[in-house]
Amino acid sequence: MTADVLRARLGPAVVQADPDVMAAYARDTMPLAAHGMPAAVVFPDNTEAVQTIVRTCAELSVPIVTRGAGTGLTGAANAVDGCVVLVTTKLNRIVEIDPGNRLAVVQPGVINAELRNTVAEYGLFYPPDPSSLDSCTIGGNLATNAGGLCCVKYGVTADAVLGLEVVLADGSLLRTGRRTVKGVAGYDLTKLFVGSEGTLGVITEATLALRPKPPAPSTLVAGFAETVHAGNAVAATIRAGLAPSLLEIMDATSIEAAEAHLKTDLGTEDGCRALLLCQSDSGGDVARAELEAIERICVAAGARMTYVTDDPEDGRTLLHARRVVLTALEAYGACLTDDVAVPRTRIADLISGCARIGDTAGLRIAVVGHAGDGNMHPTIVYDPASAEERGRARQAFDAILRLGLSLGGTLTGEHGVGRIKREWLERELGPVGLRVHRRIKAALDPANLFNPDSMFFARNPVSHDGMLEKRCVRTPPRSSSKSKNAR
Amino acid sequence: MTADVLRARLGPAVVQADPDVMAAYARDTMPLAAHGMPAAVVFPDNTEAVQTIVRTCAELSVPIVTRGAGTGLTGAANAVDGCVVLVTTKLNRIVEIDPGNRLAVVQPGVINAELRNTVAEYGLFYPPDPSSLDSCTIGGNLATNAGGLCCVKYGVTADAVLGLEVVLADGSLLRTGRRTVKGVAGYDLTKLFVGSEGTLGVITEATLALRPKPPAPSTLVAGFAETVHAGNAVAATIRAGLAPSLLEIMDATSIEAAEAHLKTDLGTEDGCRALLLCQSDSGGDVARAELEAIERICVAAGARMTYVTDDPEDGRTLLHARRVVLTALEAYGACLTDDVAVPRTRIADLISGCARIGDTAGLRIAVVGHAGDGNMHPTIVYDPASAEERGRARQAFDAILRLGLSLGGTLTGEHGVGRIKREWLERELGPVGLRVHRRIKAALDPANLFNPDSMFFARNPVSHDGMLEKRCVRTPPRSSSKSKNAR
Repeated sequence: MTADVLRARLGPAVVQADPDVMAAYARDTMPLAAHGMPAAVVFPDNTEAVQTIVRTCAELSVPIVTRGAGTGLTGAANAVDGCVVLVTTKLNRIVEIDPGNRLAVVQPGVINAELRNTVAEYGLFYPPDPSSLDSCTIGGNLATNAGGLCCVKYGVTADAVLGLEVVLADGSLLRTGRRTVKGVAGYDLTKLFVGSEGTLGVITEATLALRPKPPAPSTLVAGFAETVHAGNAVAATIRAGLAPSLLEIMDATSIEAAEAHLKTDLGTEDGCRALLLCQSDSGGDVARAELEAIERICVAAGARMTYVTDDPEDGRTLLHARRVVLTALEAYGACLTDDVAVPRTRIADLISGCARIGDTAGLRIAVVGHAGDGNMHPTIVYDPASAEERGRARQAFDAILRLGLSLGGTLTGEHGVGRIKREWLERELGPVGLRVHRRIKAALDPANLFNPDSMFFARNPVSHDGMLEKRCVRTPPRSSSKSKNAR
Repeated sequence: MTADVLRARLGPAVVQADPDVMAAYARDTMPLAAHGMPAAVVFPDNTEAVQTIVRTCAELSVPIVTRGAGTGLTGAANAVDGCVVLVTTKLNRIVEIDPGNRLAVVQPGVINAELRNTVAEYGLFYPPDPSSLDSCTIGGNLATNAGGLCCVKYGVTADAVLGLEVVLADGSLLRTGRRTVKGVAGYDLTKLFVGSEGTLGVITEATLALRPKPPAPSTLVAGFAETVHAGNAVAATIRAGLAPSLLEIMDATSIEAAEAHLKTDLGTEDGCRALLLCQSDSGGDVARAELEAIERICVAAGARMTYVTDDPEDGRTLLHARRVVLTALEAYGACLTDDVAVPRTRIADLISGCARIGDTAGLRIAVVGHAGDGNMHPTIVYDPASAEERGRARQAFDAILRLGLSLGGTLTGEHGVGRIKREWLERELGPVGLRVHRRIKAALDPANLFNPDSMFFARNPVSHDGMLEKRCVRTPPRSSSKSKNAR
């Protein structure tokens, strides 16, 4: 029914209701979040079509779950039963690049790497670099406020957004922000929509701030016998006022997995059980001085080995060890990746705590992370075929969230909340924060049309006890006369 | 009555109802915005007192106008008749400085310069530097999302805020954000409150991100015979991917005023009718290369003179010419300062447009501005004793806003909207944007308690025709029994 009405209004090419297609678009990359089955999957290629979809769904009381490439790690793009999945991948035009004002205007379906490569031709730089950058979309990056390795120096996606065009729950088109780099007129609606995970509207265009392309980075690697030494080196680097453009950490489990995958020694032979990878893109003698200062800090913190290179290709090879960890871990089983961020002084505590949690759960947990901003990705390896092991993995996942909060941290540095951390968000926000979230959601989406009950329960549910995934099942509209007459 | 109830609950020291005191706190620094007379001025020194004030005012249906030092330039802190003015200057503790995590926790009444100087002792840097930094409060900076000379490299106040503590309209205490540098859990309520100009709640604490203290800056001055040449040099600097830490412009009227005030030649003798002042804090050879590249661009754009210095004291002296302009203009009359931001490619158009507007109005208009981010401060000089001249000044003010919007700009780069640009905000936002603003205001402050009808009319007013300032006059509560019994 939903698919028929949408087809009548949008044409058959835009609407898919084939069960195989719908199954393919029913979930994102988080393995443990529940999902439903959509009533239709739609592929609009212009803003007016998005408005028609939203108005039609509002009329039919059918929820809308918006998604890009589906690389998300929280279930935020998972379908609920009977919903319409709105796929943004055909809204994929780079509308404008304005080098004189260092900005780009793009549709949400543009692939992150495509934008990066295109603006690079103008000598410009779009910083956000989530590890899925070759396939993830700008729209998904905006929805989750995605980050990456760049964040220690350049911030998350929100820091690169000047303005948005958003289709609201009544189908009207909101323009937020501006084309100027500076502007404080009215509430910051741009930042409200960025990171709202599809719960407040559908982003159909974004104006993004670009930066001058920085100099090619110099790279430092340091190996430590103990994780706590690496953590101390990070804290000392921050305290010393140094600002590297990349500062990553790998724990012993990550190093071993990467070594096995790459068939090389990354420091284990020297007794290294933690690695720091660091870059500076400040250029010239400033970059050199920055890395030398960090190298001295690492040595003072007990580094067993350090290695510095100005050669960008050499730097890329070194960084590959960090980038390959998730793939390497997949040799041992399925991966469940956490995303806590802690104060930078508590990184060592988080890593040692994860080791304890792994021991308790009887599961391998590898920690890699953006040490420079305290955003850690403990990754739990489990056998997806075993329900019992899946349960243990989920318990470990929750234990890591608990640990992160207890260290003064947050549930999510860059992946978002989605359906997998919904109950945890309530703990982090507290009752007043949750109430404000609900009020804002109700103010902008009173019928709870957009991504219902993802991120938080829009209304107080009867009960929601942590592990239980409550699917949102909508009853079909009682009368279809209205929709038949419409248009 | 309001004062009596507040005194009974808070003690006499917190509440002032002396007419002279109330008059002193009835308005900010914008001369042309209307203001009313408060029923009381309160000086809470702790969060619980703020909660009591808000609950009491909610009970009595008395609006609350929150203010810091009153250095604002939009009338956003102006009293409405019968309101309570909540002054944050006694909430003035620097609660914590955490160098390991590069953050500070402060109360809203802390003076900007006090925070800057205190964190400098730790080798840290709090970037936002509005020109009133010696007297303005962090709370006012947060409310207006204040900027300064730093913004071209370091952004506005919002870019330095990690989290807030806010007293909401029902007196409950909301905590937003976090202590980690990275975090995307839930909606970005922090950014929603920053820049909301006191319309959504009372900020009682802020967690601020600090940066490493940058190297002492090197300075470049370039003089041009034509404003358009200076504008072209700015655009070419941006296009070349250069990132100075300061890039200011002064037009001929500003130069003349500063020369007269300082009794020195700033370039007029060489025929300079526009100056660019530029700094780089990248340090070492990077700073030198950056300024040399900008100098080459200036020469290619037709600069008549350039001067570069590595000496910080020398740089400060040069910058003083820019900082002194407003004071210098006061020799000629009262000043009305605009705050439009335009795309950086349109700066020359804005300056030449302001000259035309000045000619039409028969008033001196000097333009200084943050050229690097397109945020210009055309300043209209007028005789405050002449009602006719005040009217012409206001017309010129509006004409500059119209010009800024027509160039693809925004009404305000850093001062905010307040009562002086309220009707203009509607034009910039459009009807959908305004509706979303009203819905968010209603969701968080349903009784319109906080700074009513500043920034925008919370409800559709019967009519609001540009120049007419509609004061909000509240009737006293019909029964006082509730408030007498309360406590």
